[in-house]
Amino acid sequence: MEKPLILISNDDGIAAPGIHVLARIAQQLGDVFIVAPDSPQSGMSSAMSVNTPLRVKRHENTDYNDNVNIFSVTGTPVDCIKLAMNNILPRRPDLMLCGINHGSNAGNNLIYSGTMGAVMEACMIGIPAVGYSLMHHSMAADFSQTVPYIEKISKAVLSKGLPSGLCLNVNFPAKVAVEGLKVVRSAKSHWTEEYREYIDPTGRPFYWLTGKQIDEEPEATDTDLYWLGRNYATVVPVTPDQTNPAAIQTVLSIVG
Amino acid sequence: MEKPLILISNDDGIAAPGIHVLARIAQQLGDVFIVAPDSPQSGMSSAMSVNTPLRVKRHENTDYNDNVNIFSVTGTPVDCIKLAMNNILPRRPDLMLCGINHGSNAGNNLIYSGTMGAVMEACMIGIPAVGYSLMHHSMAADFSQTVPYIEKISKAVLSKGLPSGLCLNVNFPAKVAVEGLKVVRSAKSHWTEEYREYIDPTGRPFYWLTGKQIDEEPEATDTDLYWLGRNYATVVPVTPDQTNPAAIQTVLSIVG
Repeated sequence: MEKPLILISNDDGIAAPGIHVLARIAQQLGDVFIVAPDSPQSGMSSAMSVNTPLRVKRHENTDYNDNVNIFSVTGTPVDCIKLAMNNILPRRPDLMLCGINHGSNAGNNLIYSGTMGAVMEACMIGIPAVGYSLMHHSMAADFSQTVPYIEKISKAVLSKGLPSGLCLNVNFPAKVAVEGLKVVRSAKSHWTEEYREYIDPTGRPFYWLTGKQIDEEPEATDTDLYWLGRNYATVVPVTPDQTNPAAIQTVLSIVG
Repeated sequence: MEKPLILISNDDGIAAPGIHVLARIAQQLGDVFIVAPDSPQSGMSSAMSVNTPLRVKRHENTDYNDNVNIFSVTGTPVDCIKLAMNNILPRRPDLMLCGINHGSNAGNNLIYSGTMGAVMEACMIGIPAVGYSLMHHSMAADFSQTVPYIEKISKAVLSKGLPSGLCLNVNFPAKVAVEGLKVVRSAKSHWTEEYREYIDPTGRPFYWLTGKQIDEEPEATDTDLYWLGRNYATVVPVTPDQTNPAAIQTVLSIVG
């Protein structure tokens, strides 16, 4: 019997430590294809390359079991999934895992996340898909406490699947000791979007995005930001589809 | 009394003809700030620049009334909205308009669209926002038949607003004669994602995304693809939030 095929990607790029933690877990569960960006792609959402061509590079497997295959793509996380499906994978994957992201994808980060962009891309073509993120940006972050949770969730999704149109956004707290797992919704939140202004050597200004995430409902006990702040891992159900048929009558009353 | 402030952006870049059709409509409705990417950003979704700085350029207004201000940004459509809100606009805008996009944002194009990425960015911070697209990629496309519809919809949204968390995705058929306007949902659809393979002069392959959009429910009479195919303009209500609290119990039964 064929082993399950597991597609792995991320948005921090093929060199980021988090993806290799994920691959070491996945190689115990099935045959693995890593197809990841060749460069950091944080904040790339569901962006895809329409105006530029893509290259694919096969990397030597020196660190894994023989059932792991490693490719990088000169594009976005979504490009990786599309190219993997069409030009790289030997068959349709049974599971898609993404991450482990170096940084939070909780609250309103979801819509900007390249990690979740890749997860939603897989979800939209019917592949059970899970994104994993650690709320710690360091490339030297300690992922050890995330491993048993990732194993449990990945095995469950591999064996039971996910309903059509549904994928998962899993976040781990920055602290090493994880208290437990909560299935919750995303907190309503926003970023205080300040741009730091700099002056270049020729006297012209340039701007760099900064700011911090504000939980708009800190009292709500059923959100990811609430539980991550209390050192729990969180699982948020995500539906990529942004159309809202329930609002058709309301919109008719405005523009009809 | 202050005139309404209208923020305009797009994803085809400041030089694309479509944005100037939109600006000529908007300058009749209020004071206009165009803040658009300096280069084409099609397919950029809700991507934002986190690893690179941004520059802003003010452009001379030679083609419009005095109440039009023109800026370009070296980033994505979402970057344009964030920078406009934080560093460019004199006050909070009353309306955000995006486009007119050169190409369709109907069906599943929504999630990849840079045009709709900017619209959703404005929506998430509470600004009534509408994206306009013409199903024609040519830079020489004839937008004349779209003008009365854009005037009507923009005026209605400016005077009545939109419910919190809701924005609009308006598409026009490629044919010049528009039969009417339908408020509908997005058609379930996907792209046949083929990558054309090329060989570069040194013998190495590269790939370029191609393919066509497939309507998965061509019999459904309440979708954008159905009515666009019959030369109607379509308005689709869009909600940026992709979290799905209704699925929490289901996910608990899988991973809990």
